[in-house]
Amino acid sequence: MVPADVKFIVFLVLCTLILQVQSRNVLLILGDDAGFETQVYNNEICKTPNLNKLAERSLVFNNAFTSVSSCSPSRSVVLSGLPQHQNGMYGLFNGYHHFQSFEDVRSLPSLLKGAGVRTGIIGKKNLGPESVYPFDYSVTELDGHSILQTGRNITFIRQHVREFLRQNSSSPFFLYVAFHDPHRCGHTHPQYGQFCEKFGADGTMPDWNPVFFDPASVVVPYFVQDTPAARLDIAAQYTTINRMDQGIGLILKELELAGHADDTLVMYSSDNGIPFPNGRTNLYDSGLAEPFIMSSPYHRKRLGQKSDAMLSHVDILPTVLDWFGVKYPHYKILKNAVTLTGKSLLPLLKEEPKESWDTVYASHSLHEVTMYYPMRVVRNKQYKLIQNINFQMPFMIDQDFFVSRTFQDLLNRTQQGKETHWYKTLHNYYYRDQWELFNIVTDPQELHNLARDPSHSKVYHQLQNQLNMWQNITFDPWICSPSGVLQDVGPHKYHPQCYSMYNGL
Amino acid sequence: MVPADVKFIVFLVLCTLILQVQSRNVLLILGDDAGFETQVYNNEICKTPNLNKLAERSLVFNNAFTSVSSCSPSRSVVLSGLPQHQNGMYGLFNGYHHFQSFEDVRSLPSLLKGAGVRTGIIGKKNLGPESVYPFDYSVTELDGHSILQTGRNITFIRQHVREFLRQNSSSPFFLYVAFHDPHRCGHTHPQYGQFCEKFGADGTMPDWNPVFFDPASVVVPYFVQDTPAARLDIAAQYTTINRMDQGIGLILKELELAGHADDTLVMYSSDNGIPFPNGRTNLYDSGLAEPFIMSSPYHRKRLGQKSDAMLSHVDILPTVLDWFGVKYPHYKILKNAVTLTGKSLLPLLKEEPKESWDTVYASHSLHEVTMYYPMRVVRNKQYKLIQNINFQMPFMIDQDFFVSRTFQDLLNRTQQGKETHWYKTLHNYYYRDQWELFNIVTDPQELHNLARDPSHSKVYHQLQNQLNMWQNITFDPWICSPSGVLQDVGPHKYHPQCYSMYNGL
Ligand SMILES: [Ca+2]
Ligand SMILES: [Ca+2]
Ligand SMILES: [Mg+2]
Ligand SMILES: [Mg+2]
Repeated sequence: MVPADVKFIVFLVLCTLILQVQSRNVLLILGDDAGFETQVYNNEICKTPNLNKLAERSLVFNNAFTSVSSCSPSRSVVLSGLPQHQNGMYGLFNGYHHFQSFEDVRSLPSLLKGAGVRTGIIGKKNLGPESVYPFDYSVTELDGHSILQTGRNITFIRQHVREFLRQNSSSPFFLYVAFHDPHRCGHTHPQYGQFCEKFGADGTMPDWNPVFFDPASVVVPYFVQDTPAARLDIAAQYTTINRMDQGIGLILKELELAGHADDTLVMYSSDNGIPFPNGRTNLYDSGLAEPFIMSSPYHRKRLGQKSDAMLSHVDILPTVLDWFGVKYPHYKILKNAVTLTGKSLLPLLKEEPKESWDTVYASHSLHEVTMYYPMRVVRNKQYKLIQNINFQMPFMIDQDFFVSRTFQDLLNRTQQGKETHWYKTLHNYYYRDQWELFNIVTDPQELHNLARDPSHSKVYHQLQNQLNMWQNITFDPWICSPSGVLQDVGPHKYHPQCYSMYNGL
Repeated sequence: MVPADVKFIVFLVLCTLILQVQSRNVLLILGDDAGFETQVYNNEICKTPNLNKLAERSLVFNNAFTSVSSCSPSRSVVLSGLPQHQNGMYGLFNGYHHFQSFEDVRSLPSLLKGAGVRTGIIGKKNLGPESVYPFDYSVTELDGHSILQTGRNITFIRQHVREFLRQNSSSPFFLYVAFHDPHRCGHTHPQYGQFCEKFGADGTMPDWNPVFFDPASVVVPYFVQDTPAARLDIAAQYTTINRMDQGIGLILKELELAGHADDTLVMYSSDNGIPFPNGRTNLYDSGLAEPFIMSSPYHRKRLGQKSDAMLSHVDILPTVLDWFGVKYPHYKILKNAVTLTGKSLLPLLKEEPKESWDTVYASHSLHEVTMYYPMRVVRNKQYKLIQNINFQMPFMIDQDFFVSRTFQDLLNRTQQGKETHWYKTLHNYYYRDQWELFNIVTDPQELHNLARDPSHSKVYHQLQNQLNMWQNITFDPWICSPSGVLQDVGPHKYHPQCYSMYNGL
């Protein structure tokens, strides 16, 4: 028998929980390979009126970073709050790459489901297994939908957002809209152009007003060569960014129509860097930095402001859980107790922090299964340290980017001995030092490696230690690579250690 | 309505099928990291009376090879007939390594289940997903059993073999007994000795008569340093090989008691090379060559003979299907039509082939997830060509082997500048050429790389072409690595191509 007063307390707790979550929803919008090509981040050419409008009632982050600049790994971090090396999504999920998160992982959809929050995903999922990422409502490429329809057709997306919201009359929700725009598609669907900028112009996407850009007037980022080929690519990219922006406008309108404009936390970011040289698959800032916009109807104080706090995608899960008042459980992955390293962003909506939002970490292992290039990164406001674990082999180029106009242009110019108009050479892009230390303040383009500079040896070793501690608490299998062997089972279960192979590294 | 004569034909076909499989069973026995330490292969010290007895009524192969010298990948090849790069098991399944075969793969247990053959596995599975490798009867580490019990306790194994055979009165069967002996265990269970040679001596393994060996009299293979430390390891290894041999005796006795001595095809091999330097995880012959013994009650002509035919573990699946008269289906993995490259060994039981059993292939990608070292191999009776794809990084040492007495001995001797008594240096073991060509006949220890020898350029290019063709029909994602990018989707779907990255390789 359960005593009556215990029952009453349970009843009260349940009521509180229900009241707490009842008028709180989350809309998370992710671009695919999107960057800073928006007026929100001072690009005046690539028009994004809907993001602008959202930004006006948001806190806009100047120092937001992905945890890994690769599609599935990044999406796994967004939904699990754990770096790829901890959640198991070491590379791409799709096709023969075949990476997946560990069965033990507790992700946002599974945690929220348990807390009575209805979850929905519309767009690109590229994650597995299903048991780890189980959405109540799912319209993705893994549900039999064409990735072009569900990820780029803004009319299709709008209709499904409406359907989700209609079905959702009585409970709080977490809706994740993952655009496939502005991802390249010259690799898979060249008939639609390099960025699928010609897709849907035939009337199948009635909500879209195509906007085209003059290659002569696009803004060429410092890490892309300023050549006609690259400018053509950027102009096409702008068209699909603008299409995504129109889609975001439609989604926010649906939210309003459904009566949820004033009870929904809206976040916008991108999974990884833009698909240009030194961008996606890299952990230089050109691949690591992301747009991040957060709008809360319950925190109006700082809306329209900018924050310099350094945030990482590992902070998204704690933010959403905080918003819904859901506790992160105590549990283990592969027998190791899980500790979140991210934290809720909600306090930042009240005031700019004076301390502690000053360091982020990043971790990449593979992208395609043939592209083994583990990197580990710690970055604060002044310095960044990168470890390139497989550094004696060349950095690899993915299938998608390889066939792009921009990369082919770099390749052809290099082969023909022409001026590349690029700030690096292909050779120094391919071959990197094991350790790269950059002063981000004085060298934002990360061109001068200070790792062997005696005057930086103190900060170099401090950052190495910091990185190592983070790898330790996040159970990084690569913590001893490439010079050592990790011993972490049997007698080493509770005190893992690195032992040197004496391989000269 | 189905016409009566069609019904009758269907009836006849079914009867024929049933009759055909009724009195034919298969027992496949696999050692874990076992090699040629048996009298069957002329090791006079390591006593293996039961393997000897089996060999007397078997065809014994002198040129049998694994497809990959790593545990899970090899087991996936044994059961799927497809190289690891084609079935998706790119590395170890267990723990954070987390590799799995593709969901599409059709393996022996699933194909035989469909053909009315009852399937059983007892011992070490180390494979997934379950849907791809579904045994009717399963007593493995993945079913909650201790790997020590199910893989090393010969009494436990005998009892479960008996249980399987008892439950199996009416249908043909495929029983796969996968010993964990003689795998090392100093890594996980040092309390039982380096090879678990002290495990079960407390009376929990009543069928075992422990046999110990004098380190001074063991046979040290050419690829292991002849030092006291290595000899201690080999003596311990012999004890667990001998234990496995006793287990094999028990299993064959159970088979006889159940009345299946005369209707069961028995095969014995090992998953990969022995856990000594240049052995397991390597594709030199010291890691690649395997024992292989095959005994058929219906083919008595060549029993007791030896065959020089070159066979690979990819031949096991076609052999078993041939034995049961089951056809390999037409199907696709990741949209690519599957073609088996192995063939049935049954014809070899009738006569030694005059041609076509003269080439094998091998393919390794990772072992532990941090040990990226893809290798591709073609080997015929005279030459072997190895491509080391990640060759600019050192070859890695696995956790298990690293802590072994033998490897620690090599490491300490090297560090201390002492004589190692080894045929290689650690440095040349770690750092390999991208292409290695060996004349196996004149250089069986594979010490003289002929890849750049002008007098061998013809055979070198022939073998490169042959290897490339095999990678092509087996859909190897690494076919263009490390110099190129594979394009195989979108417009390249039906004519995949390699494009150079111009990275100097
Ligand atoms: Ca992406
Ligand atoms: Ca093994
Ligand atoms: Mg992608
Ligand atoms: Mg193993």
